[in-house]
Amino acid sequence: MIKYSYRMKVFYKDVDKMGIVYYSRYLEFFEAARTEMLSSIGLDYEKVEEKGAMLPVIEAHTEYKKGAVFGQDITVHTTIAELPKVKMKFNYKVTHLNSDEILMTGHTIHAFTNLNSRPIKVPDYIKSLLERHMNS
Amino acid sequence: MIKYSYRMKVFYKDVDKMGIVYYSRYLEFFEAARTEMLSSIGLDYEKVEEKGAMLPVIEAHTEYKKGAVFGQDITVHTTIAELPKVKMKFNYKVTHLNSDEILMTGHTIHAFTNLNSRPIKVPDYIKSLLERHMNS
Amino acid sequence: MIKYSYRMKVFYKDVDKMGIVYYSRYLEFFEAARTEMLSSIGLDYEKVEEKGAMLPVIEAHTEYKKGAVFGQDITVHTTIAELPKVKMKFNYKVTHLNSDEILMTGHTIHAFTNLNSRPIKVPDYIKSLLERHMNS
Amino acid sequence: MIKYSYRMKVFYKDVDKMGIVYYSRYLEFFEAARTEMLSSIGLDYEKVEEKGAMLPVIEAHTEYKKGAVFGQDITVHTTIAELPKVKMKFNYKVTHLNSDEILMTGHTIHAFTNLNSRPIKVPDYIKSLLERHMNS
Repeated sequence: MIKYSYRMKVFYKDVDKMGIVYYSRYLEFFEAARTEMLSSIGLDYEKVEEKGAMLPVIEAHTEYKKGAVFGQDITVHTTIAELPKVKMKFNYKVTHLNSDEILMTGHTIHAFTNLNSRPIKVPDYIKSLLERHMNS
Repeated sequence: MIKYSYRMKVFYKDVDKMGIVYYSRYLEFFEAARTEMLSSIGLDYEKVEEKGAMLPVIEAHTEYKKGAVFGQDITVHTTIAELPKVKMKFNYKVTHLNSDEILMTGHTIHAFTNLNSRPIKVPDYIKSLLERHMNS
Repeated sequence: MIKYSYRMKVFYKDVDKMGIVYYSRYLEFFEAARTEMLSSIGLDYEKVEEKGAMLPVIEAHTEYKKGAVFGQDITVHTTIAELPKVKMKFNYKVTHLNSDEILMTGHTIHAFTNLNSRPIKVPDYIKSLLERHMNS
Repeated sequence: MIKYSYRMKVFYKDVDKMGIVYYSRYLEFFEAARTEMLSSIGLDYEKVEEKGAMLPVIEAHTEYKKGAVFGQDITVHTTIAELPKVKMKFNYKVTHLNSDEILMTGHTIHAFTNLNSRPIKVPDYIKSLLERHMNS
């Protein structure tokens, strides 16, 4: 399992009339979290693109327990539980910074494509990097 | 089944570096579509709130087939297939305006709460309105 | 003067904790309004790009009088007051749909560039189209 | 002069078809930067609200020199140059993290109101805190 904790703060731009984070914003938080996770294991997304691969989202799922509110520090706990065969799945769990209480959960599933959006196999250097961190 | 077609256009604000709609934006499109759908059957959301009820999203799900691109006219086909018992489900299908090709699909599930976010039963006037349109 | 009225509705996605439209959202509304205005005089932005020109924003300005709230129908009144020499200016005024009360005003100034972001002269076909509509 | 440097990263969610940050996003970056700046001098915005004051934006202005691109680390340099009399002005300058090259600049002007959006004088504790940090 590869794990990464992305810490961030909720601002006015993120919350709706109820004072809680608008439901689509979490997908933005997920993107920031997985981008930083990949970067932390040597997979800067702009370099992945330079090498000719993209990881477009093909599925996203979110479940909301309790809303994060303005001013709160939250953590997006991101995990990759399995090595990708043709698709890659990220799991997300959002909590307050200093609490285990789960605010919401979700996942995204990504395909591997070339820059023309054609499906490709998982590039070897990505597979290697993921394997190495999966077992560490 | 209650059906509603929400027509809209994709602008620069909606697309990412690939020139296709960023994945979280569809949740905004879904909100516009279901708000207009409810309004079309007499359930203006601001009036629902005035009467003391809210329909917070508790689950959202999206599957991406093909991206909508800048300048395209698209339709968000929204349906309610079942009368709500405690939760209410909306299904969405996004197509080009003049085509049956599906760009993406999704659903959202909503709870009924009072203004303090406490779960409530489906208000009678909402149930009646939905029933009437379900069978028409 | 070229004039265009863009009618739209305020949704949950647009409003903040105060229940009024978050300040950056108006720049998105402006983009939709000017894109539709240009389209209405034969300048679909995707065709402008196909012909090799872009109109990047180089300045934006907004003044907020009163917030638009969730559920409101508003109009973004857009005008071009002068033919562009090297830059092009759009003025915006947001009102309720059926009222002259001004909610906010703003402008954007755009350069003309080629697809590599190099400044170019205003393309002749754009100049002609603008001239024709300016005087009508 | 009160100064604050807010460091952040540009993600996919922020960029448009040209691969550069969409023009309205900077207003979100400005909000994050000024919120953190105020927090750094003891003015957590949620506490300001609890004490009955709000600082709604009444004017925003942006000038774009060069776009920040996906993956870049940027700094939003925020300054308050003058003690507020009735209005408060924040100036912003966005640069790459390790460079003085200016990507864009802007400002926002804020009023002081009570929670019912009525204008109020600058609360004394805010004035004191600002004065103390202005001269340090």
